[in-house]
Amino acid sequence: MSVLSRFLEGDIRALSKVISHIEDRAKGYQDLLGTLYEKAGKSLRIGITGPPGAGKSTLVNGLAHEYLNDGMRVGVVAVDPTSPFTGGALLGDRVRMNEFPPGDRFYFRSMATRGASGGLAAATGNVTVALDAFGFDITLIETVGVGQVELDIINACDTVVVTVVPESGDAVQTMKAGLMEIADIFVVNKSDRPGAERLGMDLKQMLRARPVKPESWKIPIIDTVAVERKNVDLLRRKIDEHIGFIKNNGQLEQHRRQQIEKKILSIIKYQFQREFLETLGKDVDFEAIIDKIMKGTTNPFKAADELYTTFSGK
Amino acid sequence: MSVLSRFLEGDIRALSKVISHIEDRAKGYQDLLGTLYEKAGKSLRIGITGPPGAGKSTLVNGLAHEYLNDGMRVGVVAVDPTSPFTGGALLGDRVRMNEFPPGDRFYFRSMATRGASGGLAAATGNVTVALDAFGFDITLIETVGVGQVELDIINACDTVVVTVVPESGDAVQTMKAGLMEIADIFVVNKSDRPGAERLGMDLKQMLRARPVKPESWKIPIIDTVAVERKNVDLLRRKIDEHIGFIKNNGQLEQHRRQQIEKKILSIIKYQFQREFLETLGKDVDFEAIIDKIMKGTTNPFKAADELYTTFSGK
Repeated sequence: MSVLSRFLEGDIRALSKVISHIEDRAKGYQDLLGTLYEKAGKSLRIGITGPPGAGKSTLVNGLAHEYLNDGMRVGVVAVDPTSPFTGGALLGDRVRMNEFPPGDRFYFRSMATRGASGGLAAATGNVTVALDAFGFDITLIETVGVGQVELDIINACDTVVVTVVPESGDAVQTMKAGLMEIADIFVVNKSDRPGAERLGMDLKQMLRARPVKPESWKIPIIDTVAVERKNVDLLRRKIDEHIGFIKNNGQLEQHRRQQIEKKILSIIKYQFQREFLETLGKDVDFEAIIDKIMKGTTNPFKAADELYTTFSGK
Repeated sequence: MSVLSRFLEGDIRALSKVISHIEDRAKGYQDLLGTLYEKAGKSLRIGITGPPGAGKSTLVNGLAHEYLNDGMRVGVVAVDPTSPFTGGALLGDRVRMNEFPPGDRFYFRSMATRGASGGLAAATGNVTVALDAFGFDITLIETVGVGQVELDIINACDTVVVTVVPESGDAVQTMKAGLMEIADIFVVNKSDRPGAERLGMDLKQMLRARPVKPESWKIPIIDTVAVERKNVDLLRRKIDEHIGFIKNNGQLEQHRRQQIEKKILSIIKYQFQREFLETLGKDVDFEAIIDKIMKGTTNPFKAADELYTTFSGK
């Protein structure tokens, strides 16, 4: 029986194999991924982001429990911090892996930042599609910070939870960081610590000060103590509420369509690049062009223009 | 007189205007940038990277002084941290701007991470080309961390200085972060603090353990106290030494050629995307295709394949 058949029958080991196959871009991975896309579309994607030390992993753990207790199937994708100077991710993984009994109702995958040259967002997206096609009801996607790669990942989520803690700076910094623009829900975690109340109040004030349309989603601020699982159930209800909201007003579908559009464009660009590089390898003296640019007798824009015209004319 | 003429005559206000023009992608910016490329190629690009709080700004300041004192012209490009949770960059900028007298021998530019959707590395590269064409001998490029965007920026540098401090973690973390692979020079800054000696020794041991060819550059480790400008002169000499080394063995030219190749490819991909999107807008019912994908009767790969064939056949 093929790996795909076993995957479609719900064999969790086949899921791991399928993901590895796609991540390695092994032979035929596009056809495989294409098939997964046709099966996918039902799973909800919840992004949890915030600074290092905000307790995202614990929060994700808690949320996973909430959904699992309701009989749902939960996938977790943890994207390692872009900043490699904090080394906490690995230990976190191991803790979580042990906390849930093996079975086909929970799956955890850690994505490494390094090595995935420019393609981490795409790789994360692909894993999410695999989990979706496998039948997980919920995928929790955990990222640190809001660099470009993280933004691409977060933008692919249906609901975005931004987690802050008193230690991570004040509300002004949060706003400056552009987190107001991506948050559907704010969580003030470690809310039993000094400064938490103040942070929550400042956030509230800033949210109030923003111009919002009457029909817009009202971004809630939830105080949690994730290690004690305090208010994690409330967070889960708010997530469900947000999903309901965007389902009703058509935003969810709109969002999914945009994601598909982006995916198609990225596949096509990749295809173009491959063909173009092939042509370049065969028909063009690229080194001679670079020589000229090095000498300053032409420049990359003129060269690109000529090369593109040659390629398009073929 | 046109801005470009004033730029070429060394008017520093024209430099600012040219950079803004390029950053805004204002009308004709490609021709302008193309012309700058033809004038550029002489400036050396020194990348300074490391974790937040490693004292990079102070180090860059010190290096700028070293070069200015020798009568050289120095540009500084500071790329704001990807992680927006640390808010130190803005203050640092102001301090630096005031420290150097106005004139055409020093120029400072801060690049914002947010907003530059996917294009921060390209934008930084463009500014560097403008500084180069303007006649700066040295461009110091400061980045935080090693996410993909930062890696792209650092890879465009001729010499990469990785700055660590005892607080930023041990040598193992530095290695795990992939910093061993990008460093041409290590700096242990704040070397008067506890743990600095140990960090330096561990780094040395790890560098020794790496397999290196006899003809390879030997990565030095320099202890500095940037706030006291201690050993910044030594760092500067090591940078000069590294530049001499890669000039002699042809690596510098090889590296510059690769950068040009990458630039040409990115221009062409952009051009392709624009034309493709135009075609899409006119000739294709994209919404109908997305409908089918949403229903699971086709997938993004099949759709991309068909669209690409249509476009190529035109």
